[in-house]
Amino acid sequence: MVDILHRVGIKSSPEKTYRALATCQGLADWWTRDTSGDSRVGGVIAFRFPDGGFDMRVVELTPGKRVLWQVVDGPSEWVGTKIHWELAPKGEYTVVLFKHEGWKEPVEFMHHCSTKWGTFIMSLKLLLEIGRGALAPDDVPLGDWR
Amino acid sequence: MVDILHRVGIKSSPEKTYRALATCQGLADWWTRDTSGDSRVGGVIAFRFPDGGFDMRVVELTPGKRVLWQVVDGPSEWVGTKIHWELAPKGEYTVVLFKHEGWKEPVEFMHHCSTKWGTFIMSLKLLLEIGRGALAPDDVPLGDWR
Repeated sequence: MVDILHRVGIKSSPEKTYRALATCQGLADWWTRDTSGDSRVGGVIAFRFPDGGFDMRVVELTPGKRVLWQVVDGPSEWVGTKIHWELAPKGEYTVVLFKHEGWKEPVEFMHHCSTKWGTFIMSLKLLLEIGRGALAPDDVPLGDWR
Repeated sequence: MVDILHRVGIKSSPEKTYRALATCQGLADWWTRDTSGDSRVGGVIAFRFPDGGFDMRVVELTPGKRVLWQVVDGPSEWVGTKIHWELAPKGEYTVVLFKHEGWKEPVEFMHHCSTKWGTFIMSLKLLLEIGRGALAPDDVPLGDWR
């Protein structure tokens, strides 16, 4: 099992950062505009992109601190994996630790998703710091992979 | 042992992409302006940033295909780790597979370095596609971490 890790410091409060991760409206503002579903614990959120998408079950929500999802539908490499968001205040920043846990193999798609998560986490930072992210379908292109 | 993985498709040839990875001048154009040393196999390249740096021994150079470094000095978590660059043509793109291999533990610094490598790999892409990267000391800021 291998994991994708990221970390960023966002000039925002843990409460605002949490809202961007724990509500469909928040998620639709930095990841993909086409986000819908039930964002409560036990609910399933559907994230859609021009070329497919992911369904995540919300496993844990701890306001201002933690969001945990498990992938229930999407590409086979993603199904069953978990996505952790850990938030902590640090001075005027909120530190976001991200982990996409439980990839079976470090396949080429995992390399792609690691870079892609990085660009979306920068989109989250942009949203909270300047009010506008780089979200799908207008996200940062990584070249040949769709 | 845990690894940082990334992948990007760059609209450039494997030969040009290789030159940006295998020469001090190339590296100074997308990673950090303060790059110096001996970029031949067995040589050591010194990468310097406002807050420190890394010394890498060049382990392998296969023109147009592969660059491999081993970290010989820098932060303790980096020393002994290896950095792999694999290049392959795909239509009008060169696919770059990146691996920073051999972290002992998935510490917070590793999360930060994963995101930071992502932004620098996007700088490599910018350099090759539009002629100008986002290199240190003017690289993309990730917030509180220096």
